[in-house]
Amino acid sequence: MRPTVHPTAHVDPSAQLGDGVSVGPYTLIGPRVELGARSRVDSHCIIGHTEPGRDPLPLRIGEDAAIRSHAVIYGGSTIGTQFETGHHVAVREGMTIGLNFRLGNHSDMQGPITVGDYVRVHSSVIVGEHAELRDFVWVLPYTVIASDPHPPSDGHYQGVVLEAYVVVSAGCTLLPGVRIGRDSLVGAHTLVSRDVRPGSVVTGVPARDRGDASRIALPDGSPAYPWRRHFHRGYPDTVVSAWDGVANSRKSS
Amino acid sequence: MRPTVHPTAHVDPSAQLGDGVSVGPYTLIGPRVELGARSRVDSHCIIGHTEPGRDPLPLRIGEDAAIRSHAVIYGGSTIGTQFETGHHVAVREGMTIGLNFRLGNHSDMQGPITVGDYVRVHSSVIVGEHAELRDFVWVLPYTVIASDPHPPSDGHYQGVVLEAYVVVSAGCTLLPGVRIGRDSLVGAHTLVSRDVRPGSVVTGVPARDRGDASRIALPDGSPAYPWRRHFHRGYPDTVVSAWDGVANSRKSS
Amino acid sequence: MRPTVHPTAHVDPSAQLGDGVSVGPYTLIGPRVELGARSRVDSHCIIGHTEPGRDPLPLRIGEDAAIRSHAVIYGGSTIGTQFETGHHVAVREGMTIGLNFRLGNHSDMQGPITVGDYVRVHSSVIVGEHAELRDFVWVLPYTVIASDPHPPSDGHYQGVVLEAYVVVSAGCTLLPGVRIGRDSLVGAHTLVSRDVRPGSVVTGVPARDRGDASRIALPDGSPAYPWRRHFHRGYPDTVVSAWDGVANSRKSS
Repeated sequence: MRPTVHPTAHVDPSAQLGDGVSVGPYTLIGPRVELGARSRVDSHCIIGHTEPGRDPLPLRIGEDAAIRSHAVIYGGSTIGTQFETGHHVAVREGMTIGLNFRLGNHSDMQGPITVGDYVRVHSSVIVGEHAELRDFVWVLPYTVIASDPHPPSDGHYQGVVLEAYVVVSAGCTLLPGVRIGRDSLVGAHTLVSRDVRPGSVVTGVPARDRGDASRIALPDGSPAYPWRRHFHRGYPDTVVSAWDGVANSRKSS
Repeated sequence: MRPTVHPTAHVDPSAQLGDGVSVGPYTLIGPRVELGARSRVDSHCIIGHTEPGRDPLPLRIGEDAAIRSHAVIYGGSTIGTQFETGHHVAVREGMTIGLNFRLGNHSDMQGPITVGDYVRVHSSVIVGEHAELRDFVWVLPYTVIASDPHPPSDGHYQGVVLEAYVVVSAGCTLLPGVRIGRDSLVGAHTLVSRDVRPGSVVTGVPARDRGDASRIALPDGSPAYPWRRHFHRGYPDTVVSAWDGVANSRKSS
Repeated sequence: MRPTVHPTAHVDPSAQLGDGVSVGPYTLIGPRVELGARSRVDSHCIIGHTEPGRDPLPLRIGEDAAIRSHAVIYGGSTIGTQFETGHHVAVREGMTIGLNFRLGNHSDMQGPITVGDYVRVHSSVIVGEHAELRDFVWVLPYTVIASDPHPPSDGHYQGVVLEAYVVVSAGCTLLPGVRIGRDSLVGAHTLVSRDVRPGSVVTGVPARDRGDASRIALPDGSPAYPWRRHFHRGYPDTVVSAWDGVANSRKSS
């Protein structure tokens, strides 16, 4: 199935569009862009932005992407299959992104950044340079992941590491270089200034350890964390069945 | 007076544009959109967005709307007269919005959400699922109104309720399910984790009750709250005269 | 060299484009806009926005500007040379902006605002009415600079003043009317409710004085502040050599 390109869109001749790709009105696809089969790019987007005077860098986006309107994605990144964005996002160069990454409206990724598989970043999140978001991480709205410990500085950037399954709630600031341990929960409106041990919950300004995240209960009394025990929406069965053996003890529709 | 549609705009044949409607350059009006008389939609907008593969839902926007550039509004909402947005907003499906709602630049409404009459939401605010913003509410920039008490969860969303005349200052996070009582003030950069009694002021992380909002004074010594006693700009006389009898004791131009 | 205007762009006949100006696809240049030589305006922008029913105000942008995609800049401002914006910014009327101002993605300037020379405002910052950002100021992401001490009010706006060389870190809220003294550092996620003395560091909600900023050390043990002693990237030699005599004691590439 040939790509469907709206007559008002501009696609660079060197761009490669897979089978069944669709490109919406007023969208620009730059040079050296590869869009995997069945990917959709909505209207008013720029895919493969290159700053004037620079050589275009390759941008590879896997199959089945859904890029919503007014998105700007620079050249110079590799993005896995089932990539999904909201509206008005900005993604700079230097990304290495895994499968099924979802990025919310107005979010801004500064790059270079490493993103694992099945990561969800909600609306209006800023992800700073050298951050590492591992598999199954969640970041909620209005969180900023900083990178420069002594702004402005040169070459002293320290990336934040979010280990697998971490949830960062809304309105948080993560200081440069902190590491949030696997399965941990950062409560809303928290300033994280030190590393967070795995499986814990932290809140406050600055963050303090409030105990084990597993002590937080859902309305039915069962533990809310690790969330993978009960929340499976959006993950394929192969992923869920691989989650620690405990994953299938409860199931949400 | 017939609608004025810029030659570069695309209007779906099933959309209904009222008398004197104007549609700016590079704007898309989707199926089943009704735009009331004299409404204006500026450039680079998407009104009535439908996700691929879904049936278009009706979007009704009342008379005299002013929708500024780069706005994205999904199908599936009912919006009252004199709706006004800033630039780069995103409004998803499921909204029930009253008269003269104003939404600032870059704000993001997730839906479903209920908004009363004469509500003002400033720039870069995120309003989460199931929120209820009653008449005359104000929300200032960089406030996030959360919805999921145990992210990620399924079906446990708890909407925030802002009662009439509430003011939420800049940089706040409102946790899922909290209710802010009528006439209350939430100070800047506050994390609201519990209900707030009517007529009070709360500040801090987490928020604490700091007394009655009526004790906050304007430079001339008169009480700053309830604000409807002295601030009338943008409200019609019929609204102001209905405000509790106290509304006309002082007047701002 | 004549301007290069993409065939899909619309340029008002009264706009004046300097030598070598480029205007990207789907961009609108309004009436009474002056764009200095070699300036570039990328795609999907609105430069010189005028609200319907108002008279267009002049917008003067100096030479060598770089305005990235989806930017909205109102008429009624004067902006110096080497102006640079990210994507999706909104700049309202009434700005007086010096040389080489850089404004990050999704930022929002409400106006009127005064900005000195070589000011850097990062992504998703909101600058409120009557703010004054003096020379060499830095403001990091998700900071909001407020203006209304008793929202909603009429005519009581109090502008924030950031003196020269100030750095405001990510996620801060600056209350109306506060003055941050020269060379000071506001730590991340801070609520600034009072004036900050020059050369100090403040953190917390609300902010507290944590001592002199000069006591903060870089990894090599030298003081991180005042930053102009060691950080010179992006400033011309004439600027750096004028910095207090101390500026050249250390140098960053």
